[in-house]
Amino acid sequence: MSEGWRYPAPHDWVDCVLDALDEDVRYGDLSASALPTTQQARWYIEAQASGVVCGAGIAAFLLDPLEAGEEDGEITVHRSDGDRVQPGDRILDGLAPSAFVLERERTALNYLMLLSGVATLTAKFVVAVEGTSAKIVDTRKTAPLMRSLQKYAVRCGGGFNHRMGLFDGVMLKDNHIRLAGSIADAVARVRATAPHMAKIEVECEALDQVREAVTAGAEIVMLDNMDPFAMREAVRLFGDRCVLEASGGITLDTVAGVAQTGVHLISVGVLTHSAPALSFHLEIEGTD
Amino acid sequence: MSEGWRYPAPHDWVDCVLDALDEDVRYGDLSASALPTTQQARWYIEAQASGVVCGAGIAAFLLDPLEAGEEDGEITVHRSDGDRVQPGDRILDGLAPSAFVLERERTALNYLMLLSGVATLTAKFVVAVEGTSAKIVDTRKTAPLMRSLQKYAVRCGGGFNHRMGLFDGVMLKDNHIRLAGSIADAVARVRATAPHMAKIEVECEALDQVREAVTAGAEIVMLDNMDPFAMREAVRLFGDRCVLEASGGITLDTVAGVAQTGVHLISVGVLTHSAPALSFHLEIEGTD
Amino acid sequence: MSEGWRYPAPHDWVDCVLDALDEDVRYGDLSASALPTTQQARWYIEAQASGVVCGAGIAAFLLDPLEAGEEDGEITVHRSDGDRVQPGDRILDGLAPSAFVLERERTALNYLMLLSGVATLTAKFVVAVEGTSAKIVDTRKTAPLMRSLQKYAVRCGGGFNHRMGLFDGVMLKDNHIRLAGSIADAVARVRATAPHMAKIEVECEALDQVREAVTAGAEIVMLDNMDPFAMREAVRLFGDRCVLEASGGITLDTVAGVAQTGVHLISVGVLTHSAPALSFHLEIEGTD
Amino acid sequence: MSEGWRYPAPHDWVDCVLDALDEDVRYGDLSASALPTTQQARWYIEAQASGVVCGAGIAAFLLDPLEAGEEDGEITVHRSDGDRVQPGDRILDGLAPSAFVLERERTALNYLMLLSGVATLTAKFVVAVEGTSAKIVDTRKTAPLMRSLQKYAVRCGGGFNHRMGLFDGVMLKDNHIRLAGSIADAVARVRATAPHMAKIEVECEALDQVREAVTAGAEIVMLDNMDPFAMREAVRLFGDRCVLEASGGITLDTVAGVAQTGVHLISVGVLTHSAPALSFHLEIEGTD
Amino acid sequence: MSEGWRYPAPHDWVDCVLDALDEDVRYGDLSASALPTTQQARWYIEAQASGVVCGAGIAAFLLDPLEAGEEDGEITVHRSDGDRVQPGDRILDGLAPSAFVLERERTALNYLMLLSGVATLTAKFVVAVEGTSAKIVDTRKTAPLMRSLQKYAVRCGGGFNHRMGLFDGVMLKDNHIRLAGSIADAVARVRATAPHMAKIEVECEALDQVREAVTAGAEIVMLDNMDPFAMREAVRLFGDRCVLEASGGITLDTVAGVAQTGVHLISVGVLTHSAPALSFHLEIEGTD
Amino acid sequence: MSEGWRYPAPHDWVDCVLDALDEDVRYGDLSASALPTTQQARWYIEAQASGVVCGAGIAAFLLDPLEAGEEDGEITVHRSDGDRVQPGDRILDGLAPSAFVLERERTALNYLMLLSGVATLTAKFVVAVEGTSAKIVDTRKTAPLMRSLQKYAVRCGGGFNHRMGLFDGVMLKDNHIRLAGSIADAVARVRATAPHMAKIEVECEALDQVREAVTAGAEIVMLDNMDPFAMREAVRLFGDRCVLEASGGITLDTVAGVAQTGVHLISVGVLTHSAPALSFHLEIEGTD
Repeated sequence: MSEGWRYPAPHDWVDCVLDALDEDVRYGDLSASALPTTQQARWYIEAQASGVVCGAGIAAFLLDPLEAGEEDGEITVHRSDGDRVQPGDRILDGLAPSAFVLERERTALNYLMLLSGVATLTAKFVVAVEGTSAKIVDTRKTAPLMRSLQKYAVRCGGGFNHRMGLFDGVMLKDNHIRLAGSIADAVARVRATAPHMAKIEVECEALDQVREAVTAGAEIVMLDNMDPFAMREAVRLFGDRCVLEASGGITLDTVAGVAQTGVHLISVGVLTHSAPALSFHLEIEGTD
Repeated sequence: MSEGWRYPAPHDWVDCVLDALDEDVRYGDLSASALPTTQQARWYIEAQASGVVCGAGIAAFLLDPLEAGEEDGEITVHRSDGDRVQPGDRILDGLAPSAFVLERERTALNYLMLLSGVATLTAKFVVAVEGTSAKIVDTRKTAPLMRSLQKYAVRCGGGFNHRMGLFDGVMLKDNHIRLAGSIADAVARVRATAPHMAKIEVECEALDQVREAVTAGAEIVMLDNMDPFAMREAVRLFGDRCVLEASGGITLDTVAGVAQTGVHLISVGVLTHSAPALSFHLEIEGTD
Repeated sequence: MSEGWRYPAPHDWVDCVLDALDEDVRYGDLSASALPTTQQARWYIEAQASGVVCGAGIAAFLLDPLEAGEEDGEITVHRSDGDRVQPGDRILDGLAPSAFVLERERTALNYLMLLSGVATLTAKFVVAVEGTSAKIVDTRKTAPLMRSLQKYAVRCGGGFNHRMGLFDGVMLKDNHIRLAGSIADAVARVRATAPHMAKIEVECEALDQVREAVTAGAEIVMLDNMDPFAMREAVRLFGDRCVLEASGGITLDTVAGVAQTGVHLISVGVLTHSAPALSFHLEIEGTD
Repeated sequence: MSEGWRYPAPHDWVDCVLDALDEDVRYGDLSASALPTTQQARWYIEAQASGVVCGAGIAAFLLDPLEAGEEDGEITVHRSDGDRVQPGDRILDGLAPSAFVLERERTALNYLMLLSGVATLTAKFVVAVEGTSAKIVDTRKTAPLMRSLQKYAVRCGGGFNHRMGLFDGVMLKDNHIRLAGSIADAVARVRATAPHMAKIEVECEALDQVREAVTAGAEIVMLDNMDPFAMREAVRLFGDRCVLEASGGITLDTVAGVAQTGVHLISVGVLTHSAPALSFHLEIEGTD
Repeated sequence: MSEGWRYPAPHDWVDCVLDALDEDVRYGDLSASALPTTQQARWYIEAQASGVVCGAGIAAFLLDPLEAGEEDGEITVHRSDGDRVQPGDRILDGLAPSAFVLERERTALNYLMLLSGVATLTAKFVVAVEGTSAKIVDTRKTAPLMRSLQKYAVRCGGGFNHRMGLFDGVMLKDNHIRLAGSIADAVARVRATAPHMAKIEVECEALDQVREAVTAGAEIVMLDNMDPFAMREAVRLFGDRCVLEASGGITLDTVAGVAQTGVHLISVGVLTHSAPALSFHLEIEGTD
Repeated sequence: MSEGWRYPAPHDWVDCVLDALDEDVRYGDLSASALPTTQQARWYIEAQASGVVCGAGIAAFLLDPLEAGEEDGEITVHRSDGDRVQPGDRILDGLAPSAFVLERERTALNYLMLLSGVATLTAKFVVAVEGTSAKIVDTRKTAPLMRSLQKYAVRCGGGFNHRMGLFDGVMLKDNHIRLAGSIADAVARVRATAPHMAKIEVECEALDQVREAVTAGAEIVMLDNMDPFAMREAVRLFGDRCVLEASGGITLDTVAGVAQTGVHLISVGVLTHSAPALSFHLEIEGTD
């Protein structure tokens, strides 16, 4: 595992990162001809706000001149994914051809800003539920082509991952149940064909649905937009027979109350669809 | 141009959208076996918040059964990209095999939510500067592999696009200028080699730098983190000799004041790196 | 879902099938110039041996002239994936330009032969365990780039799927346990970080290991190369507390005995790494 | 040429092997979190059956930590493609991060098992025809996206390659001849347009067809499903005027008899469509 | 086979053509916003010089609005690949959204111009050798990623194809022979391992080399930069024992003399590396 | 930046070059088996004609054995892109496995020949206008998938680049103007929506059109197929208010006259669509 990453890191990121670089540079950096050709620049990236870093491994990959086939240069990683940072904390620094650094600056910073935004928001939710047994988990409401990295950012922030996609877990929502006819029918049908390693979760909006789901053998039940009283009752009645997941518009203001109902999991869409970016900047501090 | 898009639409979106679908579905939708195989579902997508739609064309592409090789089905587009919507407004509806709809729901909604978030936030900035001559423009601080679509969303919200990447415009920032030695040297060096169609922009932090940039022939000058008084002075002195772009941490609270200085452009990074998603949901209303 | 497939079909096959066609045709079919240019050929594919069909949907995709952009032609699917066939049974027939048919014949037949081979061998194992409660499941010992399709073929033959890859289930094997120190440590470590939807399976070679795994909370235990007596004992002791999977060199001769021990699952590598192909051929029966 | 390969090796394998690794690992190895993060594991792969190795070069590529960007580690190749092995023979060993080894184990073993299976079966056919002048050749009945590697495995087993696809040789089969009208017409038509470097082969089922093909100028004639007497006669009459290839359901039991007829080539589909895998396993023998 | 193509057409062109379109359009056509959005334009492409058309099939593919997913429009193909044209001859015309036509015009014209240039130059060489038995063939000196299409253009101009690449024929050049030690050694070594369908060609610079190559069993001998007298002698001595190919700086001025020596083939690199483009233009003749 | 390239080099060439290598080698180099397996060959590439080199960086990339994963070897770059060469000048030399060199020779030479052809022809145009203020610029009439490299070759020859594609500059041609209604309407419409960094060029065929374009605010005016008198008049009237670009069938014979009219730019399509290749060859001078 390269420097900067937090273990276990995602596997499938290299092509996406190179495609993102290509998205920005494409036919070449027109501004590069402003720069003396043989100059080596000494640069650093530092945080401009408080939060949790994510994307240091990607930035290190992008800004490592040797990795990219340049003949000289160096890079040092000061903070790794999952580390807390304050404004002014140095994340990475190095020495590389100046055109190389400026060509890759924006792509590296975009990853750092967006992923650290996700990690930082996750960490706030995690702090808010400290002292309860609830875990914060993500959803599939992710930026297109960023799922694996955003879910890694959630882990860096102290959260946990829900299923990665449609292929690694069964979730029966209101639409499935309506189409199947009943919770029992939907669960039975899936149980008969799905792989034995796939757990089955059922989305419920009321206690009688929860009862039906548990009876049908659901291993996880989502309490969708239920009020705290109903959630607490669900925990009392079924909390030792299945995993209970609270879901539906939960915010930093409401999450502690939800956690205190005793649910096992709280899934939060905002972690990946609406986290504000965390600010970083890259500065050149001299030339060699 | 297919239905749902606003003219002119981006060109390069199909492969990304199919890759995003693959990211979610991959080896197949395990929950699909809950569904009766031959059932046709009648579905709709509606807004759950007020804002500007963007992503209707993508959702229509994803949820059109004929486009995807299914033998039957239909789709209707009620709102197009750039339209304003209220909670409860119907965006699209259609008829398709139920497994087809549920497999593609999340990918379609993710695009709708994220792009409408960008368009909606842009529209708020555009409204805030109404009555001035300032245009709201975006930056390169975009989500990886989403640049073209996020910049389209900015246009749908009434904003304008800055350069697409490093290849279609020259921007000389503090780092370039430091490395080149001076604004004049940096501009001269680029002017001698860059394509004649590329405009040159110089980032300045003070009025004497603006003067140097204008003298050097910069066609656009970025007023980076200047106070309103300095911006107003820059407009008075140089506003008829080059395009002036205000930049640097401008928010919905401060943008009107900036616009009133007379600058031509206001670039806003938050449009693409921190716009909160706009909510939509997909419902099945019956089966055929 | 197109004709010929069995529900639920895999999602991610189109690009692979087109790549396989390209692997065969590449710079063009040199033999095609032997053929009159405007001739339409009436063709059929029939089975040459008894077994279970898999690949009819792919063959229909490859040999459908309209799907491929030809202006005329037709195709009829007589047998779908999962159907039993006898020598001489017709699977598909159609009308298409003769050069089109001969160019695509080999690619279509290769899929049919190999996938039907997997489905047919699976069906033999399924028949062998009839009357017991054991399910036949596959492994990750698949042909490179064919996993999703081979696992679909296992389903067509009446078998079930184990995990698709390293990403959708936890399997702790001898090597993991040795490196982690103990079964209990390995399970605890994974439990603390893995997604809540992922089940944990532990590979055991003796009863005391099974006990340790069950105690540690393993949801599935693999009985690796155990003798039938030990398996029966494992079923007696732990069969109602976890899923028990027999594994290790199980053949058509031995599978019934294994099933009678009461294990829930029997995983069989030979289904995907050593299934002999089932024979089919394509004949031209006339021209239009 | 890297270690482990037999000369001349295929050229186009790297992307396929990385895609196969991605097929297995995709969003990450969930079981990896069971492993201590900084542990280096000492591993080896050994044969569990007798046969001919193929895939050692691929396994060495996959399991070389330096090749994959890890900072430390080593690998040693003990047996190369084409070498004969016995149970217990060590093929490769090395030192690498334990999560790295376990993540790549299955993909490496799948290539080794399947390709060694092809090489081993080929070698059995080659041994069976020793003392005759017949060469064993492969067909286009290969696993999709594995043709180049399976044909390399045939060479490793002592066999020879027939054409790689439709683009590098002309083969006029029964269907072509029926559509062209006659053998003479088909050959003449191809001769007039095909590249001069492409040899022409004609599939024949009877001696008079062989005569017609030879007269038409076929450089190779396939004796399709002929009995040994007819093959011997074909050799006597035409064996010095063209290359004669026996084909059609030839097995290890029948191949010696076919070879004794004096044919030059014997093509065997079973080599690539039905070769059983050869067993190998990977063990961790300690940690550093 | 779609309209505009000459039979047999290449197989592998679609992805390249779409990539070339993307190379030009990429993030969108900035000039398109000059155009009224709903306008349908009636357009045509006509030749501006005399020559042989190649690329009509590609242009038809690019400019067909229905093929590209537009809802309305039409296209008519007036001249197909291989047809002779005069200035003013109409090749294609159609009706499509004006932005659609202008976005695709340049890519379509680039293919038409470059491929028709190859076909036209080939046709001039073919005319120059009329009355002799020599065929004009191409080389591997092609534009990167255009080999298959340029070789198709050679066929459209009346020429024939040499091998497509390193994989479909053996060519032993001066460098191979020097490294192998002798012509005889090089041929013997290849004969022992290469596929039986691959012909062997040897490059020779003098008659004694030709003799050595023929004795060694070369099926084709390249007479490299020989003078006409030597070529004529080679034909006399070896012309009935192998195919003789003249090569080396042959021009339109010298090709007739070479052809009259009796060689079977004349390979001409200039066909694909230096053919001047043939001019075409696209005009809008009205709107609907 | 690697050796051989001229600064600033294109960014997006690696994948294209590897694809071009694959286009030639694909399933392997059949001729390679003529070569002793362990032989290291000492090779060089030299020019066979006078001109300007382009492609040295690509050839160095392709022929560097260490870059390609070989364990030994070396390469030296003697001439870089943009250097003038005479016949016999050595461009590159090195030491590598003989099969490696011969496998990559043709692909490397094809790039060198074609790109040096473009650079050399450009240099001739540049020389022809020396002493005037006119710059030679290219067009979008490029070989498919070679645009970025051909435009780099134009820079190596002393020319300048026009826009890279439809996305990085606005060009309003006769067809746009006809569809928009007038030059003024077309410009106004684009001005209102296009990014502020995009310059607007208008194609004009007569002086009154030039006046209309300048009045409408065009930053660049193309004088399309105008006679020298009209061009001179355009320069006199508008040369200080916009950039004037001469275009339309300009040749080496006519370019000096055009330049003397005082136009700022002369665009020349022939640079990229019809430049004859420059000859180079690769020789083996010994083995180690």
